[in-house]
Amino acid sequence: MIRVGYPVTLALELLRDFPAGIELIPVSDKLERDVEIDVWIPDPYPTRAIRAWPRLRGVKLIISMLAGTEWISPLAGPHVTICNARGAHNAATAEWALAAILTTLKYFPIYQDVQRSGVWKRRFDAAAHYKAITGDATSLDPPAMLEELSGKRVLLVGYGEIGKETERMLAPFQVELTRVARSSRSEPKVHSSAELDRLIPSAEIIVVIVPATNETRGLIGAAQFALMRQGTLLVNAARGAVVDTVALIEALNAGKIRAAIDVTDPEPLPEGHPLWSCPNLLITPHVAASSPQFARNALRVVGEELRRYINGEPLKNVVQQTV
Amino acid sequence: MIRVGYPVTLALELLRDFPAGIELIPVSDKLERDVEIDVWIPDPYPTRAIRAWPRLRGVKLIISMLAGTEWISPLAGPHVTICNARGAHNAATAEWALAAILTTLKYFPIYQDVQRSGVWKRRFDAAAHYKAITGDATSLDPPAMLEELSGKRVLLVGYGEIGKETERMLAPFQVELTRVARSSRSEPKVHSSAELDRLIPSAEIIVVIVPATNETRGLIGAAQFALMRQGTLLVNAARGAVVDTVALIEALNAGKIRAAIDVTDPEPLPEGHPLWSCPNLLITPHVAASSPQFARNALRVVGEELRRYINGEPLKNVVQQTV
Repeated sequence: MIRVGYPVTLALELLRDFPAGIELIPVSDKLERDVEIDVWIPDPYPTRAIRAWPRLRGVKLIISMLAGTEWISPLAGPHVTICNARGAHNAATAEWALAAILTTLKYFPIYQDVQRSGVWKRRFDAAAHYKAITGDATSLDPPAMLEELSGKRVLLVGYGEIGKETERMLAPFQVELTRVARSSRSEPKVHSSAELDRLIPSAEIIVVIVPATNETRGLIGAAQFALMRQGTLLVNAARGAVVDTVALIEALNAGKIRAAIDVTDPEPLPEGHPLWSCPNLLITPHVAASSPQFARNALRVVGEELRRYINGEPLKNVVQQTV
Repeated sequence: MIRVGYPVTLALELLRDFPAGIELIPVSDKLERDVEIDVWIPDPYPTRAIRAWPRLRGVKLIISMLAGTEWISPLAGPHVTICNARGAHNAATAEWALAAILTTLKYFPIYQDVQRSGVWKRRFDAAAHYKAITGDATSLDPPAMLEELSGKRVLLVGYGEIGKETERMLAPFQVELTRVARSSRSEPKVHSSAELDRLIPSAEIIVVIVPATNETRGLIGAAQFALMRQGTLLVNAARGAVVDTVALIEALNAGKIRAAIDVTDPEPLPEGHPLWSCPNLLITPHVAASSPQFARNALRVVGEELRRYINGEPLKNVVQQTV
């Protein structure tokens, strides 16, 4: 019987499609004695999972409910296989990216303030914002009070599953899409990350959706912000450390760019941190995948990987092989 | 030589693709003497156009830069042909509808407040909102802090050009779409408006995009709100009068539904009007089409209609035939 540790906070009902031949062991972050398990499904809150880990014995395989697992290897070391919940949160994350782009281009944060002021004419606040952030000095009548996504030049940095899902949701808007990933490919054309700096200056929207690795840390830093055109919208749906926080704050405070981020570095973002009050910035506190379907979506993928493990089939979503 | 009156506020450069054989007459809302024109392109701001009208003589054809022309006939009477800028603002309006849906489902207005408070943990405000507005009492871990559009049941009320464009932009989200229009059709299946009340109870999102006519006035009233399920999102990208304002305010204040509206009744919405401060409501002050491309998009369509008129071809975008 394979012993599978699962987060005690999960409703058991969610595990009913798990394969037979396993013993389910609830794991809390307040274990008072050691627990012997073969497979660990960590709590989706890393802080709780990290508290639980010291009590776990015998873990050979970790299957995460998350896409990002960069915090697991430092915890568990190299002698354990780590899998992620590849694909489970693609749609939710890509939806967040689309929502972040559209909210920013439609100036909804400004209209929320107009609405609270209760003064219809304050819509000209939005017209002033358009001029300031785009630098467009053309006299328009009616003045521009929002922007269109259709036709915009979008640079997609990262072309894994979530990147592809984002592309699919962008398709009806007929954007001019350029793709960048670690290595170049064709059909569709994907540029290598060596070309990133050359591609940044023409982008109007940059969507970053790469895994957090040593290679991608600080991928968007001061040099990249310097290359961006006035009013570029940077969307970070990846991990906070992929964007250099100090450089991001400088670019925002200079009024040069706008940004929408679901992730920060550090995270959680502490009270009083200067990022909270930057202009032209939308922060959501790492919630993109936290829909009512989160656990169900994740456990469907986790359960399939578990079945492969039990049946001795090759695992599909390995992010770290046992050394 | 056909005399064409155009809004003096327009940059002449925007009219350079207009057909030859016309004389362009600038029309302001402060004309001091009468002006003889054959064709009038009214100012896109109805208030300005209405001020200009009493000075205009000889107008046989009015070509609007807007989609909605319900204000022109009461002004100009039945002895003039009225055309609209059919199609010019489809993409911008449908984009606004998508943005409104996604912003509401991702709880961005709440996260804007969380961001201003600078307290990461206040993301649980969003979790509380999810429970209150959906009425979902399931214990979720992580708690739901936003919703997914994918898979939602969407009722599209109105299936003209903008309705079709909205459907196209909704396609990647794999929603369950139901269509309603004045008369039923097939391929794709469109229900007649007689079926509206039967269809409302199962909808999670209702997008209203019908022209303002006597038939559509108050189309969504107290009876329709009573039929809606808890947490239904009503999106009005049409005209304010299509939704009964008093009933909308009651449904919002009861915490039963949520709404996103670009149009109001009355419009402009006066200071102190109770709609401004309803919960779970996003108001934008009639800006959906006001992108930097507004005039160019409109005048492309207007110019084509003008060319047909000059060449004696049948007009394409007539909304009122001369009596």
